[in-house]
Amino acid sequence: MTTSTALLLADLAGVAVFAASGASAAVAKRLDLFGVVFVGFVAALGGGIVRDLVIGKVPPLAFADWRYATTAAVTAGAIFWLHPQLARLRTTVLVLDAAGLGLFTVTGTLKALDAQVPAVGACLIGMLTAIGGGLVRDLLTGEIPVVLRREIYAVAALVGSIVVAVLYGLGQTGPIPLTAAAMLIFGVRLVALRRRWSAPVATLRPPRTGTPGSPPE
Amino acid sequence: MTTSTALLLADLAGVAVFAASGASAAVAKRLDLFGVVFVGFVAALGGGIVRDLVIGKVPPLAFADWRYATTAAVTAGAIFWLHPQLARLRTTVLVLDAAGLGLFTVTGTLKALDAQVPAVGACLIGMLTAIGGGLVRDLLTGEIPVVLRREIYAVAALVGSIVVAVLYGLGQTGPIPLTAAAMLIFGVRLVALRRRWSAPVATLRPPRTGTPGSPPE
Amino acid sequence: MTTSTALLLADLAGVAVFAASGASAAVAKRLDLFGVVFVGFVAALGGGIVRDLVIGKVPPLAFADWRYATTAAVTAGAIFWLHPQLARLRTTVLVLDAAGLGLFTVTGTLKALDAQVPAVGACLIGMLTAIGGGLVRDLLTGEIPVVLRREIYAVAALVGSIVVAVLYGLGQTGPIPLTAAAMLIFGVRLVALRRRWSAPVATLRPPRTGTPGSPPE
Repeated sequence: MTTSTALLLADLAGVAVFAASGASAAVAKRLDLFGVVFVGFVAALGGGIVRDLVIGKVPPLAFADWRYATTAAVTAGAIFWLHPQLARLRTTVLVLDAAGLGLFTVTGTLKALDAQVPAVGACLIGMLTAIGGGLVRDLLTGEIPVVLRREIYAVAALVGSIVVAVLYGLGQTGPIPLTAAAMLIFGVRLVALRRRWSAPVATLRPPRTGTPGSPPE
Repeated sequence: MTTSTALLLADLAGVAVFAASGASAAVAKRLDLFGVVFVGFVAALGGGIVRDLVIGKVPPLAFADWRYATTAAVTAGAIFWLHPQLARLRTTVLVLDAAGLGLFTVTGTLKALDAQVPAVGACLIGMLTAIGGGLVRDLLTGEIPVVLRREIYAVAALVGSIVVAVLYGLGQTGPIPLTAAAMLIFGVRLVALRRRWSAPVATLRPPRTGTPGSPPE
Repeated sequence: MTTSTALLLADLAGVAVFAASGASAAVAKRLDLFGVVFVGFVAALGGGIVRDLVIGKVPPLAFADWRYATTAAVTAGAIFWLHPQLARLRTTVLVLDAAGLGLFTVTGTLKALDAQVPAVGACLIGMLTAIGGGLVRDLLTGEIPVVLRREIYAVAALVGSIVVAVLYGLGQTGPIPLTAAAMLIFGVRLVALRRRWSAPVATLRPPRTGTPGSPPE
């Protein structure tokens, strides 16, 4: 198996994982079959589409290579029919999602650097590739994006993208250092989940008393 | 009247119809005049803007040809003042919207194929052209996009885009087969409306009892 | 100080002001530190990113020049820690926001005209540059975009962009007429705030009585 085949397979695995997360959210919101597949598609491919637009690669890979859309659609469709069983697999989904986060951060940052984007911009693009799909998933299902609210998620992606940019600057872009970077993001995310790490939240003065008894948010 | 004039007129008719749907939604949300025009503009032109970005056609037609923006703005402004009368025209609007769906699907898919996007991607782009504006309209007015929830809408567009891609592969891109494809989408959508066809919704176990009496969604 | 240095400094001042407005909204929604910085980043740079995509300038300036992202992130981080003091500076923030509105409208319209976009499209792009960040800020924090609902905001930007397009047509693109255009937008916005000017809202028939006592929206 060549490196590029390995990368493609890993990429498609990431697509499948994110499609599953989007489809699960859509099922919970009682969207119909099309809605479930669509939200799965957007969650899996949205981040990469924005990345490709921003680095000037048109049409984006999600439209140029049928394997991406097909993987996302088949996975989301499977979730539509299988979701009761999946409810018991919540931990598995979170672990796979963390793996997808690591992978998309690494490939997104690399693609941006290869397109001559300066390092700071490439790190931002890498992070957006990884978190963009989840963001749009939450917007489509009427939620404030969870990535903006809880736990170390985007921060893990940002740290990982900085590591990738440093490796790129040092010329260390072989499979071993890049895999290590993806594993780092994966590990930070898992530890954050396990220990319920979160970024700090600003202190607010007591809320106005118009809605007594309501939760703080 | 030449073919390209006919296409332009049909395209502008689609823009007007979608602008009317966006403006009506904005009026219902009590947005101000600017908000009504803006949501009408986005509903009419948003799908095409995304299509043009994705196929690398910049600036998008909505900005490059003043007739598009003007048609959208004038229509939305008219809705702002005329909407009470239009409330009685709900059926008319739905029929026109179905016509717009057919038209935008056909032109969107064709433009993507002409830009060398592979067939699967071109079908997705054609569908997004047709449903994209309504999606953003619903996001801007604080709704879960209706296209994701009810009735055969996007599915009609997707089926139509596949028909267009097949016709394109067979070299049948004259006005007659393409008009037939648009009519097919139009017809499927109308029948779906009339018979209240919907894509299936996944079965959920009973909701948790934290909020007794609340609706299932 | 050369003209381009002056423009860059003014541009970065606009970025800082919009980052502050986004970060304040995120703090009010109890987002965490990352969420606050992210919403600040999007509010400050989102409009310009869309502008650059639409005129075919990739990668967008927000990714190509590290000073933009850094300014946005540092400002938003500062708001995270300083926001209680800023609550008393509401008037100051509104004034600075009006200044940012003027500036981004002028630079956005100019960049679109320089990229050969026709005048009507360039005016729309200029307005979107100025209001786009605030739009996405409100979507991310779960609000119907305020720019669509209240006060003369986008209208001031649109009027200003038309002035810029006329000046451009007359060849008057020196610093004095452009500064005057930015001041015009700034002034209209401030007067609108002071006098509570709003665009008109369409009259609706009485709402259906399903939810008695609920507010009209």
